[in-house]
Amino acid sequence: MPGRSELDKARAGDPRALARLLSLVEDESPQVRTVINELLPETGRARIVGLTGAPGVGKSTVTSALVGAFRAFGGRVAVLAVDPTSPFTGGALLGDRIRMQDHAVDDGVFIRSMASRGHLGGLAASTPQAIRVLDAAGFGLIIIETVGVGQAEVAIASLADSVVVLLAPGMGDAIQAAKAGILEVADLFVVNKADKPDAQQVVRDLRNMLALASRTEEDWKPPIVSTVAVRNEGIQELVSRLNQHWSWLNDTGELKNRRLARAREELAALAFAALRGRLAASRLDELAARVAEGALDPFQAAEELLSQ
Amino acid sequence: MPGRSELDKARAGDPRALARLLSLVEDESPQVRTVINELLPETGRARIVGLTGAPGVGKSTVTSALVGAFRAFGGRVAVLAVDPTSPFTGGALLGDRIRMQDHAVDDGVFIRSMASRGHLGGLAASTPQAIRVLDAAGFGLIIIETVGVGQAEVAIASLADSVVVLLAPGMGDAIQAAKAGILEVADLFVVNKADKPDAQQVVRDLRNMLALASRTEEDWKPPIVSTVAVRNEGIQELVSRLNQHWSWLNDTGELKNRRLARAREELAALAFAALRGRLAASRLDELAARVAEGALDPFQAAEELLSQ
Repeated sequence: MPGRSELDKARAGDPRALARLLSLVEDESPQVRTVINELLPETGRARIVGLTGAPGVGKSTVTSALVGAFRAFGGRVAVLAVDPTSPFTGGALLGDRIRMQDHAVDDGVFIRSMASRGHLGGLAASTPQAIRVLDAAGFGLIIIETVGVGQAEVAIASLADSVVVLLAPGMGDAIQAAKAGILEVADLFVVNKADKPDAQQVVRDLRNMLALASRTEEDWKPPIVSTVAVRNEGIQELVSRLNQHWSWLNDTGELKNRRLARAREELAALAFAALRGRLAASRLDELAARVAEGALDPFQAAEELLSQ
Repeated sequence: MPGRSELDKARAGDPRALARLLSLVEDESPQVRTVINELLPETGRARIVGLTGAPGVGKSTVTSALVGAFRAFGGRVAVLAVDPTSPFTGGALLGDRIRMQDHAVDDGVFIRSMASRGHLGGLAASTPQAIRVLDAAGFGLIIIETVGVGQAEVAIASLADSVVVLLAPGMGDAIQAAKAGILEVADLFVVNKADKPDAQQVVRDLRNMLALASRTEEDWKPPIVSTVAVRNEGIQELVSRLNQHWSWLNDTGELKNRRLARAREELAALAFAALRGRLAASRLDELAARVAEGALDPFQAAEELLSQ
C-alpha cells in the first residue's frame, strides 16, 4: 500500500506519484482497493468528458486542442487515453501520444495511456478507479479518449458526464457510427476535417439520423460542431457547447442520474469479477468440457457452477 | 416452446422455422434453453469461420464471395451478421445485406442479422446459441461476420474456429487493427482492395507486425491473402488457406482446445447473467447511490451485494 506521503503527493498532482497510483489501477493490484477507499472523500468534483470515434477521425488532435482551450481558463486537465493492449506492441501504441506533445511541458496537464490486460471488461472495471484517482488529485477536467469503435469503447465513453462522438468525412462517417452503436451515447457530435469536400454530407447524414430519434421536449438535443482541429478551427464552439451541456446536466439533475447509473454498472461489474474469482477453476473446466462435447447444455452447466 | 415439428422443420433447414428459432435466441427468450437442450445432440459438426474488420474494408463483399466459393463444393452455408442495435434504425442496418443478394434465391444459403438488445455482453451470450441452432440445422459452414472494431467484436470473432481479419488500404490499416487488438485473434489476414495503390504497404506493415509476435515452431503462422473481392480475385486462395487452417486445427487437436476455451467463456458469461438476474434490484440501487455519493467504496459495495 502506498504510504500517506505518496497519496499526498498524488493529491498535490505530483505526476510521478500519480503515475505510480495509475499503474496499480492498470495492473488491477489488490492495493487499489485501499487507495480508492482513502481517496474517496475527495472525489466527485471533476467534470468528465468522453471522446470516441473511429480510427483516423482525429481524436488526439481534437483532444489536444480541447486541452489547450480549457487550459486557457486556468484549470488543470487530465487525459486518459484508453487503448487495448496488443502483444504485437507490448502496450499502448505511441503514434497518437506524439501529437499530444504540445502539452508535454505544461504542469497543469497530465496525460496517461491505459491499456487492458487482455481480458474483456478489464478496462471497464479499471477506468472508473483511474478517474477517481485523477479526480482526487484535483484535476477539474478529465478527458477520456477511447481508441477504436465498438461496444466496449461505447461502454467506456459512457463513464463520462458528456460524451463527444467524433466523425470525419470518409473515415468513420455517420452510417458507420450508427453501426457501432455510438450515436445513442453522444451528447455532442464533432465533424472534424470540416475543410474536406465531403464534410457537409457527413453533417447532413448525421442531422437526418438524429431527426429519426425520438426525444421529448426536456431531452438534450445533441449539437453538431464542425472543426478543423489541426488549425484549431471550431474548438471554441466545441468548448461553448460542452459548457452548455454541463449547465444542462447540473440544472436538470441529470448529472446525478448519470453518476448513479454509472455506479450501478460499476457495482455489477465488480460483483461479477469477484464472483469469477471465487468460481473453482477445476469445476469450471470440467463443466466446460461437457458443454464442449455437447453432453450438457450451457444453461444447466451455469446453474451447476453457481450452485457451489 | 416451439413444437417438435417446428424443431424438425428447422433441422431440415426450413428458413422460416430457423428464423423463428433465431428470433427467440436474439430476444433472449426463456424458451431458448429448452430449444438448445433439444438440439444439443446434433451440434458440434459445423465449421465456424469468423470474419471481422473495420467499417469499409469490404466484409460483406468478401463474405459473399466466400459463400459462393464454398457453395461450389455443395455444402450448405449460413451467415450470421452480428450488429449492434441502434435506436436510430430500430435494428441492424440494411446496406450491407443488399450486397448479399447474389445468394438470395439459393436454398443452400441462409443469411441472418443478429442485433444486440442494447446491453454489452448480450450478443456474446446469444451468438453461441445462434451457432448451435444453425449447426443442428445442418449447415456445414457458418460464417460469423461482425460489424465494427472493438473488444466486443473481437470476443464475438473468437467464437469461430478460424478467425479472418480483413484490412484494406486507407481504412482499417494494420496499425488501426493493432489498436483494436484484433491482430492477435487472427488466423488469416485478408488485404482486400488489393488493386489500390497502398495495398502493398498494408501487406508490408502487417508482415512487420507479425514478425514481432513470438510464435513457436508448432504455432500456426497466419498467412496474408490479397483479394479484390468485388472481382472475385484471391478468393480461391483464401478458401485454400482456410482449408489448410481447418486441417491444422484437426491434426493438432487445437480445434478441441479452442472449443473447450469457448465453452469456458460461455459458461462464465451465463453464470454472470444468472447472478445478475438474482441480485435484488433495490439493493443494487441503494448501494449504487452510496457509491455515487462517495460514501462507500465500490469494492465494499460489491461485496455487500454478493453477501446477500
